[in-house]
Amino acid sequence: MSVDERREQLIAVALELFSRRAPEEVSIDDIAAAAGASRPLVYHYFPGKQALYEESLRRAGRELSARFEEPMEGPLSERLLRVMGRYLDFVQSHGPGFAALLRGGSVAASAGTSAVIDDVRRAAQEQILAHLAIPSPSPGLRLTVRAWIANAEITSLEWLGERSVPLEELQLHLVQEFVAALTLTAAREPALAAELGSFLADEHPDGPTGRLVRDLAGLFAVPGILDAVTALATGEPASGDSESSGADGGSKSSGPGGVGGADGTGGAATG
Amino acid sequence: MSVDERREQLIAVALELFSRRAPEEVSIDDIAAAAGASRPLVYHYFPGKQALYEESLRRAGRELSARFEEPMEGPLSERLLRVMGRYLDFVQSHGPGFAALLRGGSVAASAGTSAVIDDVRRAAQEQILAHLAIPSPSPGLRLTVRAWIANAEITSLEWLGERSVPLEELQLHLVQEFVAALTLTAAREPALAAELGSFLADEHPDGPTGRLVRDLAGLFAVPGILDAVTALATGEPASGDSESSGADGGSKSSGPGGVGGADGTGGAATG
Repeated sequence: MSVDERREQLIAVALELFSRRAPEEVSIDDIAAAAGASRPLVYHYFPGKQALYEESLRRAGRELSARFEEPMEGPLSERLLRVMGRYLDFVQSHGPGFAALLRGGSVAASAGTSAVIDDVRRAAQEQILAHLAIPSPSPGLRLTVRAWIANAEITSLEWLGERSVPLEELQLHLVQEFVAALTLTAAREPALAAELGSFLADEHPDGPTGRLVRDLAGLFAVPGILDAVTALATGEPASGDSESSGADGGSKSSGPGGVGGADGTGGAATG
Repeated sequence: MSVDERREQLIAVALELFSRRAPEEVSIDDIAAAAGASRPLVYHYFPGKQALYEESLRRAGRELSARFEEPMEGPLSERLLRVMGRYLDFVQSHGPGFAALLRGGSVAASAGTSAVIDDVRRAAQEQILAHLAIPSPSPGLRLTVRAWIANAEITSLEWLGERSVPLEELQLHLVQEFVAALTLTAAREPALAAELGSFLADEHPDGPTGRLVRDLAGLFAVPGILDAVTALATGEPASGDSESSGADGGSKSSGPGGVGGADGTGGAATG
């Protein structure tokens, strides 16, 4: 093996071990043994375990960032669904070893490891913003994307510990949460709202967004929900105890679209 | 000062300094000077800076957890709005110094610091679940709450760096994101959906949930959105390019509430 090949091989072997076990449970001897190399040889290439750990994390970060790349074609939620499939696959294979680092409780955390994690988060954010194809994303939209990435991280790390739902459900839910977060941001930002219609027009009824729309619409069939939402939309109290502030609450619905929304929900009531 | 008082005073002074500056920018000498004590006296109480740092973080964690406590009265979103007001106040006063630790990139991170952070997150989760008052919260609901806490953390830390929106907006948006996350979870979990109606019935039109409902309803007045949502709800393609999968997409709307949902949105279209 050439010098470069040996170095790459040691990183690959270390990444394999650090993906399955916490860094404190992996020794230089373990890495040497798995690579079929001697301990001095490993030290010839890397000053110590931390350097090898950071190098393998860097490799993992590059592999993960590469999985975010997705052709700019088809409904947005289906692109994200494919990306999340690859992401969760990565979480399953590398998560057990790196979970403590991502949760912020690892002894191996350093300026080097946070730089890698920040780079991956930034790559995820930039990819999503690129797919949204909005010329100048607002601070609010950037924050929404960043917060959703944190949601995906935390949710998948928690899932790794408990595996309380099937992986495919987690994948779908995360995508639907992105669609919901984007919609919420659009409800506050007229410029984004103007784009939302064309995103939604490209979605398929059997895709993540279509299923979300029907699941949410299904809530209106649950006793009490439609009445309560109608009361909130029109500003007329549905129950006695909300009378105190209900009197002037209705004034808010005179804003753009407020009346349309009240009509829309009212229409559903009689549908 | 008694031994206990002196110890408490040193922690209070250290917390004040560690709240404003990164731990590497605070020395034992700074703490001694601010406390009007000698360097040897500080070392008499604490073995070193890390121990004092962890102790002041523990104090900060207790103070923050105490802010999560809120009477079990009134609309849920207004309770959460008050809690978030106190939380964001804490973020403003203590965030600058502890931000790196929460972001996972601090040299002062240790098993001790992660235990404190985990305790605070757990306290936040337990408080929210207590207010929801659902006897056995599902794994999905617990995950939703945990992910929203991560969202609140990340969003407020990012805000601290840029302050790109007024604090009151951030406070409102975080609460509305919780309401949205709860609604999304209810759309997947019939047991939670059954509770959602009574949560919503208690909300005021001028509270965070009422404003959210009207903002979302307002989206239907934006060109293209209502047509696209109606198409997704009914499974009939709104645009030519979704025809390929639109044919069988409608079959999904035969689930519980699907028909009601489709009717509801259709009603809005003709309203």
